[in-house]
Amino acid sequence: MPVINRIADFQNDMAAWRHDLHAHPEIAFEEERTADFVAKKLAEFGIEVHRGLGKTGVVGTLRNGEGPAIGLRADMDALPITEAGDVPYKSTVPGKMHACGHDGHTSMLLGAARYLAETKRFNGTVHFIFQPAEEGSGGARVMVEEGLFEKFPVKAVFGMHNWPGLPLGDFAIKPGPMMAGSDDMDIFITGKGGHGALPHLTVDPVVVGSEIVGALQTIASRMTHPVDSVVVSITNFHAGEGYGVIPETARLGGTVRTFKPEVQDAAEEAIRRISSSIAAAHGATAEVDYKRRYPPTLNHEAEVEIAAKIAAEISGEARVDRNPMPSMGAEDFSFMLNKVPGCYIWAGAGEETPNLHSAFYDFNDDLLPIGSTYLARLAESVLE
Amino acid sequence: MPVINRIADFQNDMAAWRHDLHAHPEIAFEEERTADFVAKKLAEFGIEVHRGLGKTGVVGTLRNGEGPAIGLRADMDALPITEAGDVPYKSTVPGKMHACGHDGHTSMLLGAARYLAETKRFNGTVHFIFQPAEEGSGGARVMVEEGLFEKFPVKAVFGMHNWPGLPLGDFAIKPGPMMAGSDDMDIFITGKGGHGALPHLTVDPVVVGSEIVGALQTIASRMTHPVDSVVVSITNFHAGEGYGVIPETARLGGTVRTFKPEVQDAAEEAIRRISSSIAAAHGATAEVDYKRRYPPTLNHEAEVEIAAKIAAEISGEARVDRNPMPSMGAEDFSFMLNKVPGCYIWAGAGEETPNLHSAFYDFNDDLLPIGSTYLARLAESVLE
Amino acid sequence: MPVINRIADFQNDMAAWRHDLHAHPEIAFEEERTADFVAKKLAEFGIEVHRGLGKTGVVGTLRNGEGPAIGLRADMDALPITEAGDVPYKSTVPGKMHACGHDGHTSMLLGAARYLAETKRFNGTVHFIFQPAEEGSGGARVMVEEGLFEKFPVKAVFGMHNWPGLPLGDFAIKPGPMMAGSDDMDIFITGKGGHGALPHLTVDPVVVGSEIVGALQTIASRMTHPVDSVVVSITNFHAGEGYGVIPETARLGGTVRTFKPEVQDAAEEAIRRISSSIAAAHGATAEVDYKRRYPPTLNHEAEVEIAAKIAAEISGEARVDRNPMPSMGAEDFSFMLNKVPGCYIWAGAGEETPNLHSAFYDFNDDLLPIGSTYLARLAESVLE
Amino acid sequence: MPVINRIADFQNDMAAWRHDLHAHPEIAFEEERTADFVAKKLAEFGIEVHRGLGKTGVVGTLRNGEGPAIGLRADMDALPITEAGDVPYKSTVPGKMHACGHDGHTSMLLGAARYLAETKRFNGTVHFIFQPAEEGSGGARVMVEEGLFEKFPVKAVFGMHNWPGLPLGDFAIKPGPMMAGSDDMDIFITGKGGHGALPHLTVDPVVVGSEIVGALQTIASRMTHPVDSVVVSITNFHAGEGYGVIPETARLGGTVRTFKPEVQDAAEEAIRRISSSIAAAHGATAEVDYKRRYPPTLNHEAEVEIAAKIAAEISGEARVDRNPMPSMGAEDFSFMLNKVPGCYIWAGAGEETPNLHSAFYDFNDDLLPIGSTYLARLAESVLE
Repeated sequence: MPVINRIADFQNDMAAWRHDLHAHPEIAFEEERTADFVAKKLAEFGIEVHRGLGKTGVVGTLRNGEGPAIGLRADMDALPITEAGDVPYKSTVPGKMHACGHDGHTSMLLGAARYLAETKRFNGTVHFIFQPAEEGSGGARVMVEEGLFEKFPVKAVFGMHNWPGLPLGDFAIKPGPMMAGSDDMDIFITGKGGHGALPHLTVDPVVVGSEIVGALQTIASRMTHPVDSVVVSITNFHAGEGYGVIPETARLGGTVRTFKPEVQDAAEEAIRRISSSIAAAHGATAEVDYKRRYPPTLNHEAEVEIAAKIAAEISGEARVDRNPMPSMGAEDFSFMLNKVPGCYIWAGAGEETPNLHSAFYDFNDDLLPIGSTYLARLAESVLE
Repeated sequence: MPVINRIADFQNDMAAWRHDLHAHPEIAFEEERTADFVAKKLAEFGIEVHRGLGKTGVVGTLRNGEGPAIGLRADMDALPITEAGDVPYKSTVPGKMHACGHDGHTSMLLGAARYLAETKRFNGTVHFIFQPAEEGSGGARVMVEEGLFEKFPVKAVFGMHNWPGLPLGDFAIKPGPMMAGSDDMDIFITGKGGHGALPHLTVDPVVVGSEIVGALQTIASRMTHPVDSVVVSITNFHAGEGYGVIPETARLGGTVRTFKPEVQDAAEEAIRRISSSIAAAHGATAEVDYKRRYPPTLNHEAEVEIAAKIAAEISGEARVDRNPMPSMGAEDFSFMLNKVPGCYIWAGAGEETPNLHSAFYDFNDDLLPIGSTYLARLAESVLE
Repeated sequence: MPVINRIADFQNDMAAWRHDLHAHPEIAFEEERTADFVAKKLAEFGIEVHRGLGKTGVVGTLRNGEGPAIGLRADMDALPITEAGDVPYKSTVPGKMHACGHDGHTSMLLGAARYLAETKRFNGTVHFIFQPAEEGSGGARVMVEEGLFEKFPVKAVFGMHNWPGLPLGDFAIKPGPMMAGSDDMDIFITGKGGHGALPHLTVDPVVVGSEIVGALQTIASRMTHPVDSVVVSITNFHAGEGYGVIPETARLGGTVRTFKPEVQDAAEEAIRRISSSIAAAHGATAEVDYKRRYPPTLNHEAEVEIAAKIAAEISGEARVDRNPMPSMGAEDFSFMLNKVPGCYIWAGAGEETPNLHSAFYDFNDDLLPIGSTYLARLAESVLE
Repeated sequence: MPVINRIADFQNDMAAWRHDLHAHPEIAFEEERTADFVAKKLAEFGIEVHRGLGKTGVVGTLRNGEGPAIGLRADMDALPITEAGDVPYKSTVPGKMHACGHDGHTSMLLGAARYLAETKRFNGTVHFIFQPAEEGSGGARVMVEEGLFEKFPVKAVFGMHNWPGLPLGDFAIKPGPMMAGSDDMDIFITGKGGHGALPHLTVDPVVVGSEIVGALQTIASRMTHPVDSVVVSITNFHAGEGYGVIPETARLGGTVRTFKPEVQDAAEEAIRRISSSIAAAHGATAEVDYKRRYPPTLNHEAEVEIAAKIAAEISGEARVDRNPMPSMGAEDFSFMLNKVPGCYIWAGAGEETPNLHSAFYDFNDDLLPIGSTYLARLAESVLE
């Protein structure tokens, strides 16, 4: 049973919805048109619509009997990227595009909603969660903080992401970490500026910053268990102008990726200790602004078993990778998984599809019926 | 004999000239009004005027008998600094000011010219050289390249700079290096950009640049004779934007200061070797653009003896420092000293005068008769 | 069925054998007395004995029917450590002790051999492989190179290690990496020695070595996939004597740990590139002697399933950890697993047992019947 | 007047004395035979002998009239080096030799003493100071601390060193620094040792020591005035044994050379600050043992004038270098110059003479009459 026949029938509709969304991309917390679109469709399907959580978030609720409730989640936002590809439904908004496939995610969940509303082969309640601002702004966090799971209590929540590089029809999922936690940091170094020819009258923040960059490498190489993962990248370094003046300050910024809270804590502590101590070695000071952004996306074991079973129904056991290498990328669905049980799965977008966030990326429409079937069958299976 | 009486009589005139120049500052190669002012004064004094060398340069020639010729040099340009002090003759040009005292240098040389034209107590020829663009643009180099000393051959050339921190009336001079040679460099590092969470797919130019900054310290600490002087300052470091992307490139820039050609050559060679080798250690490349700007200002021994004798006549032996610590600053008079014998002297501007290039700096008018006497007496002494 | 009753009956015998071996430790390739002991016991049990592979290796062969063959492996060597604990059967050889429990491994395999020889509840052949020199000298490699699996072909081979920290009765096993590959390296830096006060006449190998240590950190932090494991430790650094002389050379040594050949290859390549390039940055040279010692211990999936099933029979599913964090330690059983299918399991030695290689370590005798049962049941299960 | 005729007559005697001393070298504070030799000669010349200062020090006092007193100083000790050259008077003591020419210094001063005792062309007192232990042990410091200049007050003290590379007959001298101050340091780093494969359980002192070596380079490159001299050399770095164990500690040692107390103080402070702060950056500790050994040898201006005049009498003005580049080597005569006025001169030992401290070095006997004349004329000139 690769795909539910009735959902296969929706293929053209789902593609049309996606192309419409694709042509009208909206970025974080600005998904007004998209939310209207989603709300209108849900209403058409006879699904109860709730709006306003997370500013532009939409929740559709479909009840059928006394069974428990589950959440199915899609993200709606686009990216501040100018589309480079050339498709009939190309972005009409300069500087914005659906470069991560959220147009497809939304359409697949709408397809599943339509099917479930039609067929109602489940006992309980399905909440269709359409969230804003997955890209960097934590729309999921905002919905959760505003009471998503108090208003719409669920037994489990499920997310999915299309995955370029993974063959179409393949799935990948594992218990524990699927995506990394992601933090940002800024390091502000204050030395003493002065004439480039008179270094002895200065405290050179360029030298201090450079030593800090070097010493930060030891967080991965010396301080963290070799089997654990940690990334500390200094992605920007700015100090000084021109040739003649040693600057007063240097500014470094970067990202930290981890899968475990204790590794994250140790990395933050080490960044603070290394920065301040190395600055002190040279008579400078360093101030660290460490911003915890997204926690790691940690799948719950029981829900992984359910999701893997559904995936295997669709594509066969052999096409479900049960032990993929987790991604160092981040995903704000992690905020939902930290609140209620659930899991997050990668659905193959094909080996030819350009990378996520590429200006040439376009969601693979062939995935629409597969992903939509997966979501619908999850609901039917959990709410048997 | 502290100051020539006749020159003391010019004090008010010299101050007036300086205040006029101060109120109308012009930066490198734009000294049109200043050059007109100088040319007009020289003509008034009955001195032959030559213009056009170094674009805005002026040379006044005063002949009296068959003796040899000497050159007396002043610089005319202002700096792109907004004046912060509050004097009646404050700069009328926003963003430009005479923050290095070239207004005073020009006025002192005009004073000496007037005196020598009146008194003619010398046998030979004096060339009064008013050069443009001392600040960073090498006006002296341009004049020399355009044939200054072919058109106006001299036995020796003399320069002077007012020196805040040194008491008024004091002089400082020594054979050999007085001011450093100054070079600029840019180091362009090319790695491979990519996702901040996936460093293994990148070649991180921030790490490479930081290691280069560290290794460059060894030019002073390991590679240069401890008694020789060298400064290698990385004064700017720029790479990347934001938190999530490891940049493709990093750009470093800075200055090198030396007193000896062999130290300068070794420093350049080391910068090239260190940059390319450390880049190669990480699979990156580094391109070094090394720009030789100003050679060191090297005083000739015989002319130092003459200059020190004149300075001692004015202020007494005790006030002439014959072994000052040379300055790591640079001076384009070095191009003249590389061409013909001569020397460069510091004349005390007083301990209260703000530093050169300070927005609060103002030339000390009390130095006008002292410096002008020094220049006039040099001519009389060399051309006895 | 926690433990086979008949094997439980051997507990005192197995303990006595172990204590005898413990009192008479022999290190790598010197296991003469131990091999005699093993051979004598095997002969007593009516098992065919083969000697001479790997110098002191012993293979016992027990045939019963036409079924396939399996290998069960134990290691026999002690360590060059002086025993600090105080047991009745304490090492009688100063400077040598069984600090890794190979005395226990040998006794457990002898127990299993005795049981299987008595009961013969299997169809096929069991090869009992007692190897020398597991500690650093690669006795397993030598036996394999000398034709172990050509002389004694097996369908699969199984190894086991007692594991302090893991509760007694617990097991841990997973497909893929269980123990790391381990390489050694030496880096010889040649600069130019000279007077400590005249660094400019030298090429300072201490500075070069220090920069190399710093740059090597990037192998873990920048060059390796964050989810892969790599350790590059410089464990020794030696250069110079006294205060007055910059040495001619510096010598660094260390270890590299990896789980994947491609990570190992990349690490070696990076060590070579970093060492030579950074040396070149300072006019020095670096020679790298990279010695591949042990490959990673990679369990085969099918044999893991068998082993885990047996372990669960003994201790219950809940006490078999199917996803332990692999160890960065190394094990020469890897050479056998690179040749034939098989797997390697950790058997809990209790949370109170001191660490392996501690001078206070002693094998936990309570593990004898558990481990022996595991080995015996493996044979019975594979050769059903 | 190149050389005093009467002193020229002593050439063979002085050479014979030197060869005797050369054949019987004695190292720091063991100069018993040498001191006996010197005392015997002085007594023969009719000079009053004082012994016991600085253990083996000898002071000869020659009075003639009421004038002031001066000190003339020679050093007597040999070095722990095995002589490699082949001279008739080769060292008879294995492992010891006069590799720095103190045999010649002693003989020249004995020659001057003999001449002055014979001729007495001076009015006042000459103290002939023969000191032990110039090489590293500070014999001059000990004599000064034990009251040298209280027991034998002098108006000025004069030292001399033969200087290979400088042509025979040439002298070099300048006011201020002639030889550097020399300090020793040890840096003890304590981390946390452990398994080479488990860096996260350790604090790696090799990484800490390497970063400290790097950061120490900034003392020369950033913290010290570019025209001032400073050398910070880490001449030894020792940590760990073997490949498998990250060591608990690392030990660094080295030398610091400076000409000015404020530079010396700043260097010590920076070494302490850098070591402890960089250790702290990684959770380690660093203890610095900084040993002030020899201060810089700073010539007094007035005595330089006297000495240069005498040197010019002997060799002509042109052969007296009045502005030599100072040496980064150290000299314990500095302790005497810190107590009383005086100066230290280099006397050319010829361009062919091997370097000081070379196993092939031998004092150039042709210098004996020149150096002896210099010392004798100093006394006559100061005590006119």
